[in-house]
Amino acid sequence: MVAAKRKSTKEVQNLLESMADVVVDAAKKGQDPAYQIPVRALSNVEFNPKKRIIEMGKNKTARQFFNLGMAKKFMQTVLITDALMELQRQDNLSTSLREIYYRTKHTIKGTSENTFDDQNESDPLIEDLEVTLALLREELHVRAESSGTIVGPVTIVEGGDTIDCTRQGKAGKTVPSIVEPGELDIKKCSADFVLLIEKGTQFNRLSEDKFWKKHNCILLTGNGQPPRGVRRLTRRLHDEYRLPVYVLVDNDPWGYYIYSVVKQGSINLAFESQRMAIPDAKFIGLSSLDPESYGLPRNVGIKLSEQDVRRTKEVAGYPWFQKKEWQREIKQMLTSGLKYELDALANKDFRFLTTDYLPKKLKTKDWLD
Amino acid sequence: MVAAKRKSTKEVQNLLESMADVVVDAAKKGQDPAYQIPVRALSNVEFNPKKRIIEMGKNKTARQFFNLGMAKKFMQTVLITDALMELQRQDNLSTSLREIYYRTKHTIKGTSENTFDDQNESDPLIEDLEVTLALLREELHVRAESSGTIVGPVTIVEGGDTIDCTRQGKAGKTVPSIVEPGELDIKKCSADFVLLIEKGTQFNRLSEDKFWKKHNCILLTGNGQPPRGVRRLTRRLHDEYRLPVYVLVDNDPWGYYIYSVVKQGSINLAFESQRMAIPDAKFIGLSSLDPESYGLPRNVGIKLSEQDVRRTKEVAGYPWFQKKEWQREIKQMLTSGLKYELDALANKDFRFLTTDYLPKKLKTKDWLD
Repeated sequence: MVAAKRKSTKEVQNLLESMADVVVDAAKKGQDPAYQIPVRALSNVEFNPKKRIIEMGKNKTARQFFNLGMAKKFMQTVLITDALMELQRQDNLSTSLREIYYRTKHTIKGTSENTFDDQNESDPLIEDLEVTLALLREELHVRAESSGTIVGPVTIVEGGDTIDCTRQGKAGKTVPSIVEPGELDIKKCSADFVLLIEKGTQFNRLSEDKFWKKHNCILLTGNGQPPRGVRRLTRRLHDEYRLPVYVLVDNDPWGYYIYSVVKQGSINLAFESQRMAIPDAKFIGLSSLDPESYGLPRNVGIKLSEQDVRRTKEVAGYPWFQKKEWQREIKQMLTSGLKYELDALANKDFRFLTTDYLPKKLKTKDWLD
Repeated sequence: MVAAKRKSTKEVQNLLESMADVVVDAAKKGQDPAYQIPVRALSNVEFNPKKRIIEMGKNKTARQFFNLGMAKKFMQTVLITDALMELQRQDNLSTSLREIYYRTKHTIKGTSENTFDDQNESDPLIEDLEVTLALLREELHVRAESSGTIVGPVTIVEGGDTIDCTRQGKAGKTVPSIVEPGELDIKKCSADFVLLIEKGTQFNRLSEDKFWKKHNCILLTGNGQPPRGVRRLTRRLHDEYRLPVYVLVDNDPWGYYIYSVVKQGSINLAFESQRMAIPDAKFIGLSSLDPESYGLPRNVGIKLSEQDVRRTKEVAGYPWFQKKEWQREIKQMLTSGLKYELDALANKDFRFLTTDYLPKKLKTKDWLD
């Protein structure tokens, strides 16, 4: 088992303080204080074919205080840093992006100017701080909704409680947004693999049928695009217990995209790939070749919209989808002109996913890399 | 403790079979088979001031087989009934509305006609069957997503596992969609009340701060409009353990509406009020009077949109919002022209909700009925 590294509260505090030091040092020298902020834009993102993840480049931009166009943003950056420091100073206090916006919003004395008028102003500054200080949002104690669920042979310690995920009923255990060591520890795990499921419906199907027991695996879902907590927990199970990860998504361009974010990371949050991405994750389905292999009738397919076609072609162009198996997969979707939801497997039988589809896929190793 | 009644599998099967009997009986008599389906429309819904819930009226409409305009719907009704019977015949099999659509979709032999072209055709027929046979969707084994979470001093038995909800970490236990007795049993409960929280952010705040421990209560959230499972579980805690229920929502017309659905039931699913509604539920906040009482600055309020104003006036007209305290509450929102999110309490302090707002509300019984 490989333990994941995590910055201590003291280290996080020091990094946040370094933002204040920039101002103090400049003031002492009578200079213009400025932050060097890595550029978070497509122009500064690239696919690293060796590591097989999407990474941020090295471009930075200066944010100066003595600049009419930047002064407000500079002031806002300092306010956000201060609020984040407040979180660190209280024991185990976490909050949401929206609450940080409200916490830092006030009317500047003697004026009618607000420090922030909209959350769209504060969110990007938190992301700026993440990349500038090389800190994860989780280390800054900023959480999102807890929208994931887990069941299977793994025992976790979360919020001081030891939780055996084989005894969490059909509905399973809610996955918190922050799953860094200390917040969530994996105490024991005897599973053979992780099945990461796009939608709650299929998670419920497999959990109800105790698929995890028969196939000795962990079932995880994020009810749609997996949130950070679910991605990070999957990655930790992969790293710390060497578990293979299989991703089960709808057969549409959105499903391909969800898979690619799990595997290579996302373009928007390229900085986080190093802690989130799982380059060895496999795509187990639904494949464009499955309707024929599993006898799904064409009438349960859904006609690709113009937007679907455009998006599918876009996906086909990504550097990480260039393997010939993937090009064949994507071409088949465009040729048939149809997409298929996982729910369509119910056309065969309500339990078809559990009893036929997945067991055959796993047995014949019918997945894409 | 009052045990909730639940129909046995045999009773549900008999009711579904009665749909087939209608056809067989009519055929034997050489008559036109027809179903008598209660009308699910605003015209057939009324507020019962004595029971304080929204109820369905007694209007019915006939669905005939020998009628060009109804024949397809009649056939579809029979197909859906058949699929629901399939669910009952297998041990503890549940599924989703979408999977029922896929299961019953096929091309009619010798034609190019599909039995169903869209899920919009199958969903209403399932609701028709619920009201015709006086069965809950849960008794028909049709589930939705599991999108709720619970923590607090209650022990449940779910999917064969006994789960102590005081030992579910910060993130809590996922609430299943179906919480009928047999699927979910409440084994032990020592809480004094239930706090039903609109949004996950505030649930996380209170769970992280162990509010449930200090105030001996159960925290429940549905991450937005509470899904059926969360509403039904709240109702069962209220019925079986006589727990008062306090509803915590944003201060906007949507928050009022969420509260009113929990309390009186919804107009769309009036049939279910009898099993879902909690006429004694209290509105604990956020009230339009709170910003002044708790010193929230106007700049964390959000200007009501035209749609908000229209919706607020609509809510003010509902028969169940006619108490003078409610009219004052709603009038205050319209007068100030502002709405407030619960998140805005963070403007005072990140833990203000836990340490000041709710304790004061509970102590001074500052809620609306």
